[in-house]
Amino acid sequence: RLSVGAGSAMEGAASPPAGPRVLSAAVALSQVLGLAALAATGAWLGGYRGGLAWAGALRLNVHPLCMVLAMVFLQGDALLAFRVFRTEPKRSAKALHALLHGAALLVAIVGVAAVFEAHSAGGVAHAYSLHAWCGLAVLVLFTLQWLLGLGLFVFPGAGWALRGRYRPLHVFGGVALLALSVATSLLGITEMLLFHIRDTYSKFPAEGVLANTLGLLLVAFGLLVGYIVTREDWRRPPLPEELALSMDFKTLTEAESPGGSQ
Amino acid sequence: RLSVGAGSAMEGAASPPAGPRVLSAAVALSQVLGLAALAATGAWLGGYRGGLAWAGALRLNVHPLCMVLAMVFLQGDALLAFRVFRTEPKRSAKALHALLHGAALLVAIVGVAAVFEAHSAGGVAHAYSLHAWCGLAVLVLFTLQWLLGLGLFVFPGAGWALRGRYRPLHVFGGVALLALSVATSLLGITEMLLFHIRDTYSKFPAEGVLANTLGLLLVAFGLLVGYIVTREDWRRPPLPEELALSMDFKTLTEAESPGGSQ
Repeated sequence: RLSVGAGSAMEGAASPPAGPRVLSAAVALSQVLGLAALAATGAWLGGYRGGLAWAGALRLNVHPLCMVLAMVFLQGDALLAFRVFRTEPKRSAKALHALLHGAALLVAIVGVAAVFEAHSAGGVAHAYSLHAWCGLAVLVLFTLQWLLGLGLFVFPGAGWALRGRYRPLHVFGGVALLALSVATSLLGITEMLLFHIRDTYSKFPAEGVLANTLGLLLVAFGLLVGYIVTREDWRRPPLPEELALSMDFKTLTEAESPGGSQ
Repeated sequence: RLSVGAGSAMEGAASPPAGPRVLSAAVALSQVLGLAALAATGAWLGGYRGGLAWAGALRLNVHPLCMVLAMVFLQGDALLAFRVFRTEPKRSAKALHALLHGAALLVAIVGVAAVFEAHSAGGVAHAYSLHAWCGLAVLVLFTLQWLLGLGLFVFPGAGWALRGRYRPLHVFGGVALLALSVATSLLGITEMLLFHIRDTYSKFPAEGVLANTLGLLLVAFGLLVGYIVTREDWRRPPLPEELALSMDFKTLTEAESPGGSQ
């Protein structure tokens, strides 16, 4: 009766009941916010910063667009995969989750290369600012998290007990990395404004208001995605066969570590 | 056998078993990080920005110290209250939680007054930057959250069903506001550096490295507090009388909204 997200096809009569209507609305709103943030980034770079190009001084502008696309929009949507397709087999949601994160990593590498090459060409030192420190920390942790996720959850071989022990850390890490990515984006916006319009910023110029609004859109997207993926009653209802497995798993881990879960 | 946090006195033999040792270590580390962040803020303002005073130009320096103390350290510790005193009656932890948040609000108001007065005295426009927009959003939402918390959880009168429905939003809002407070602090650090040492920042001066390190300390504190308060098996084990109440509550809400929790 209720449909959850676009593309959530009902395969056969055995499907569990679809999730609440509010979840669909929240996911739709998150996509509106994410696309608005991408549009605001494009409008800022195109309207006030000379547009995009890989050659010359405009190479630096490739950086913000790649990072907003990769580390906010694609990363956020990768987290949403488990909620949008919560009535599909877990394997499909997991594949989409891993692929979106992989795409985010590729686009982020292009974005980071753009800023390193622009700094080299301009004779500017690398990675001196708080924005750079936070960004590099995110990139290293994100890559680590992605590789651990592939190794433990996608490739076969890792036992249920190890998967179960890593899963909560993986989930926390994913939400934390999205939050830190949004924060790093806000730092980048502030850096760019103070390098270009420091003396007029306090006069509420259109560029300043547009860039501030972009910052708020990124925050709103991050908050909404964080809310959707952490809300208890929007979790994936386990399919019958998953339920059986997780019961086995529970017995297994309880047998392994009696008296507590450290 | 295991002790959880300083000051967690065992009152009587009826106390439930104390939490895991790792929780104590994580709480201790969070306090080290929080105090290190406060010390780094003081060192930066004292060593490179001329120190603190309410009169004259140094009034602006009151702002960062108040905000780090209030919106990061005190707010973070308020969230930890339920974990540090997880084996005490919930009423005590709740009182500490509300008081720490109240103290944070008072100190934050002083900090915000400092920057508004400094801007007025210097003829600078108010609230034009992304830092200011994020900060004002945090302050409004924080005050709202604190008042709703007082009204629903501290003062009697709110029914169990209403409390139960608001609680998950309150918990999410608390963690989100801490994250947004840390992000806003990072923006403040970046603004201050680019207003004062923009032309030398890329040469890794001591002030820049110190302020960047302060930023990373704030991030580490926020991440660790976020981890501690969201980790499933570190939740407060319900006391026997609370368990009875929550069973009643569960029956009540399930009776009220059959077929789902919207």
